[in-house]
Amino acid sequence: MASLEDKYPVDCPFCRIAQAYPVEQSPVPSDPAPDRLDPQCYLILNTRHVMAFLDIYPIAPGHILLTTRDHYRKLSDLNPPPPPRNTDLATPSSQLDWQTQRSLHHSRDSARELGVWLTVLSRALCAVTGIEDWNIVQNNGERAAQVVPHIHFHFIPRYQEGRRENAGKGKVDVGMLKSWRMFGRGAREDLDEEEGAELAALLREAVRKELAQDGSRIDNDKAKL
Amino acid sequence: MASLEDKYPVDCPFCRIAQAYPVEQSPVPSDPAPDRLDPQCYLILNTRHVMAFLDIYPIAPGHILLTTRDHYRKLSDLNPPPPPRNTDLATPSSQLDWQTQRSLHHSRDSARELGVWLTVLSRALCAVTGIEDWNIVQNNGERAAQVVPHIHFHFIPRYQEGRRENAGKGKVDVGMLKSWRMFGRGAREDLDEEEGAELAALLREAVRKELAQDGSRIDNDKAKL
Repeated sequence: MASLEDKYPVDCPFCRIAQAYPVEQSPVPSDPAPDRLDPQCYLILNTRHVMAFLDIYPIAPGHILLTTRDHYRKLSDLNPPPPPRNTDLATPSSQLDWQTQRSLHHSRDSARELGVWLTVLSRALCAVTGIEDWNIVQNNGERAAQVVPHIHFHFIPRYQEGRRENAGKGKVDVGMLKSWRMFGRGAREDLDEEEGAELAALLREAVRKELAQDGSRIDNDKAKL
Repeated sequence: MASLEDKYPVDCPFCRIAQAYPVEQSPVPSDPAPDRLDPQCYLILNTRHVMAFLDIYPIAPGHILLTTRDHYRKLSDLNPPPPPRNTDLATPSSQLDWQTQRSLHHSRDSARELGVWLTVLSRALCAVTGIEDWNIVQNNGERAAQVVPHIHFHFIPRYQEGRRENAGKGKVDVGMLKSWRMFGRGAREDLDEEEGAELAALLREAVRKELAQDGSRIDNDKAKL
């Protein structure tokens, strides 16, 4: 059995989020307290397989991260462990032991969910910020600019240059941004706590609407995405 | 009904690939002729929902594109059409007409497949090129540097600076690359035809091994990913 520390390495900030926010019935947490962690966490989505929250060093307002719930370093690690081999041929599925099969299904469900939530969160992000253009970026390894060693997809809004776009009616001030700013701390700023709380609430509401829109009854206890 | 032209716009290069390479039984085409199209296409994967092939202007050797088979411009378009509404409440799934339901399922299956193939192709790419680091980048809209208006994910290998990595035993010459080169034609070169053919064959073989590895029986006619 994997130990709790294997599953949630103490020094992984995304694993700390997974620990602080257990899975509830709805994939969209109703009103998660940001201060369960320091730095605060602005949670948007929380399922058995994935989580989404605001990047605390946003490149642009509305910079979201989508992560797996469990700790995998790179996209290639989201993979069942190799089955025990008696021959050079692959072991048929039916011969795998229970734990390997379970891990295989869990990995596949996590990968599927990543694909589906990439689309749902994209629509929610557009609805909340008014943007039409954005990048999805997922970095694997240091030479690819991966900082936190736990799979995550960045959603980076690209606002129209010289124009302020709508980001709800509140205090979120969506700045004027040059297109194609890339990574590096120089281009990033600390997330303001008040703005973070408001933006996350708007995004949760937008995700709820998306889920109602397509007629799904999505429930962490039952339905699969 | 959507017309054939709606489904495969004539001016979309990725839709031309979908037309030139119909779905076969195996998701990994056995030996697809690159010259069915001009410029040539080096196909790696071909399912009912997604395709993968080499980028013909690679940023680095092994630069793969993963696309939806059908024409969607942005990730947010990978979404069922809004249901007809009689009230302000969302229409429950059971009340949607047949065509809307079909489109909903097709979109969801495409999104799921994107998630799963991101992991499988990542492993195949590592196995073939010897890289350990790579970026996944998906651009939505012009301000996000999207050139072809058809959803696609870039796989961009990040080779170790000053080192040549293994890319099979053949003619594929994996150059020494600075990390974090980003988009723009300046950084990209035309894919050499001979190298493309060899690299695509190695990647197809690696994907086949990945599919055998996890015990799946994946078949375009039957199994779902």
